[in-house]
Amino acid sequence: MLTREESQQRIARLQDALRDNGMDGALFIHPIDVYYFSGTRQNSTLWVPATGEPRLWVRKSFARGKEESCIGDTRPFPSSKEFPGEFGADAASIGFTFDVAPVQQLNYYQKLLPGRNFVDVSAVNREVRSVKSPWELEQIRYCGTQLAGVFREVPGFLKAGMREVDLAAEFEYRLRKAGGEGYVRMRAFNQELFQGLAVSSATAGATGFFDGAVTGEGMSSASPHGASAALIPVNAPILIDYTGVFNGYIIDMTRFFVIGTLAPELEHAFRTALAIQAYLAEHLKPGAICEELFLQAAAMAQAAGLADHFMGAPGENAKFVGHGVGLELDEFPVLAQGFKVALQAGQTLAIEPKFVFPGMGVIGIENTFVVSEAGGVRLSDLPDDIVYL
Amino acid sequence: MLTREESQQRIARLQDALRDNGMDGALFIHPIDVYYFSGTRQNSTLWVPATGEPRLWVRKSFARGKEESCIGDTRPFPSSKEFPGEFGADAASIGFTFDVAPVQQLNYYQKLLPGRNFVDVSAVNREVRSVKSPWELEQIRYCGTQLAGVFREVPGFLKAGMREVDLAAEFEYRLRKAGGEGYVRMRAFNQELFQGLAVSSATAGATGFFDGAVTGEGMSSASPHGASAALIPVNAPILIDYTGVFNGYIIDMTRFFVIGTLAPELEHAFRTALAIQAYLAEHLKPGAICEELFLQAAAMAQAAGLADHFMGAPGENAKFVGHGVGLELDEFPVLAQGFKVALQAGQTLAIEPKFVFPGMGVIGIENTFVVSEAGGVRLSDLPDDIVYL
Repeated sequence: MLTREESQQRIARLQDALRDNGMDGALFIHPIDVYYFSGTRQNSTLWVPATGEPRLWVRKSFARGKEESCIGDTRPFPSSKEFPGEFGADAASIGFTFDVAPVQQLNYYQKLLPGRNFVDVSAVNREVRSVKSPWELEQIRYCGTQLAGVFREVPGFLKAGMREVDLAAEFEYRLRKAGGEGYVRMRAFNQELFQGLAVSSATAGATGFFDGAVTGEGMSSASPHGASAALIPVNAPILIDYTGVFNGYIIDMTRFFVIGTLAPELEHAFRTALAIQAYLAEHLKPGAICEELFLQAAAMAQAAGLADHFMGAPGENAKFVGHGVGLELDEFPVLAQGFKVALQAGQTLAIEPKFVFPGMGVIGIENTFVVSEAGGVRLSDLPDDIVYL
Repeated sequence: MLTREESQQRIARLQDALRDNGMDGALFIHPIDVYYFSGTRQNSTLWVPATGEPRLWVRKSFARGKEESCIGDTRPFPSSKEFPGEFGADAASIGFTFDVAPVQQLNYYQKLLPGRNFVDVSAVNREVRSVKSPWELEQIRYCGTQLAGVFREVPGFLKAGMREVDLAAEFEYRLRKAGGEGYVRMRAFNQELFQGLAVSSATAGATGFFDGAVTGEGMSSASPHGASAALIPVNAPILIDYTGVFNGYIIDMTRFFVIGTLAPELEHAFRTALAIQAYLAEHLKPGAICEELFLQAAAMAQAAGLADHFMGAPGENAKFVGHGVGLELDEFPVLAQGFKVALQAGQTLAIEPKFVFPGMGVIGIENTFVVSEAGGVRLSDLPDDIVYL
């Protein structure tokens, strides 16, 4: 459970950012944003003025929202007629999350609060949320402990000839028994992930909607992502890229398993991925520029003769090598082309150098780190090695 | 895989509705809408003019989108500069799904296509999608076969003293091995569901954000829904309310299990739920008014002395008894107060009369039906009886 002190610190950081950006306040309706600031994910609306006390209106369930909320002024959602009076604030400029709020929601609140100027608070909000507190880092470390425990069990259930979806089922079963919540929230429109990917060489080259290095075939064109009915082969890499979600927080890790032996080309790519991870980890320091880290990683891939395979099949290469994680899988910052901002201490990133060889498979590594003055600190404890069975 | 004929029929029905509503066309960006009309869920944008041929632009992956798409004119998404020229149509009024499209997306397309009037096509789209073709009914029947198979296995793994989350893990494991895709799409803002609910009497009275009769406690305040770490007791009802998702289609079913015996009050409520289900099934005919069916169900609950417990804990009663299902869990129509529209042949609904007794548990039934001239036809085959262990 979120503490009041933690909630107040988050709101104070947001208020600083609102004032810096000339907004009079922010009205949050997305449940994950509401949860981040208030501690409850009940159906609620949160008003945070740039100066002064926040207010939370809970639609459903008020009883549960009141119990969980760290906001001193937590009350039932009023009727549409009463809302303007309860809103009270004479704010002219109201921040609203245009990235996730449906048009109908904006129209509804604009009608309730006529004469106000609704502006996009998405980037401000995402930047505030990107910097994790010690309490949040503990949450993510716990995710890492639980997820690493399932990775350690893989040699006990991974067999040649089983379907990818059977491997996924075994992994997900243990993750759920460990208390995993399952929900993997993503913020970007059109993106979604069902827990993770268990993908063999048979399908690792498949392209797809997912903004990552690997998509997999999935079970149908309606769910074209992750495990398929393809059979797990020998002498080829098997990718297990999964999230662990506990108390809403997400960790993201990838490991590779091989039943038999691996082609030297793939072993070379794996060593290159480890070298890129080591380089990036060393440079995950406040002030480092995200784009430069990506470009340096891409340069290392090129120097190893692997540019065509870096972060995607040849011609489909994604232009990133790491992404923020927290309550959502796709948080700020992103180590990506065009992302010219500087890292801040406390930001958490999944670093995932991967190489895709269509027909042969994918190889690489993924771990989640926190940015610190001493470089990236890992939030999970599990050997990086390929596991040979 | 969707066939071209099926896709064309859907688009023809949409075009009729667009003309009836005075729109010149609809621009779809939500992946489930795009999948419904085109057969691909790749990251794409679909234009359906009120008259003439549709066009699909695929962002990622074009290769996969092209392979799956039933739209004759499927092409790569152009640059922002080229889009207006490729859009071509001189449509003045453009339907857009204001219910699910984020504000940023509307702003993006309004900027690309200045001078056009973007209007809300949400209700038109949902009504078109609510009527299922024979092919879609076969998809949902298949979901029913797979999900019923897992329900039949429950007596083999349900034990007193196990945690709700262990029961959930066992159920979800078998569902995944059966080929389940996991993604349960919901359209309403702020709603989400991780596969289903395994909830015992210990937590069945918990209230929550979810717009249903039962929420459960979940694993944390971040994921306050479904199974918790509470232990499964004897002599009390255990609710298993799960979706089965295959090829994107969803079926929704609930069964109850008891280790030991059940209080007579709950047995009475169960018989009432069966009577309500039988009444509704008989009346799921074209022309029946949704609200009237709900009111009749509520009247039957009242006549049985159970009004306080119908569709929620006393004071928290939800005002519905059934909801549309298809590619999303919360489709049109809804058997709910205020929903005064007439049923149409081919609409599919999950009928779920339930009674909540805080501290004692929840009891009821849920099956998915299709509306027909002869009344509701069940899309799954599994006895309704409480299973006593």
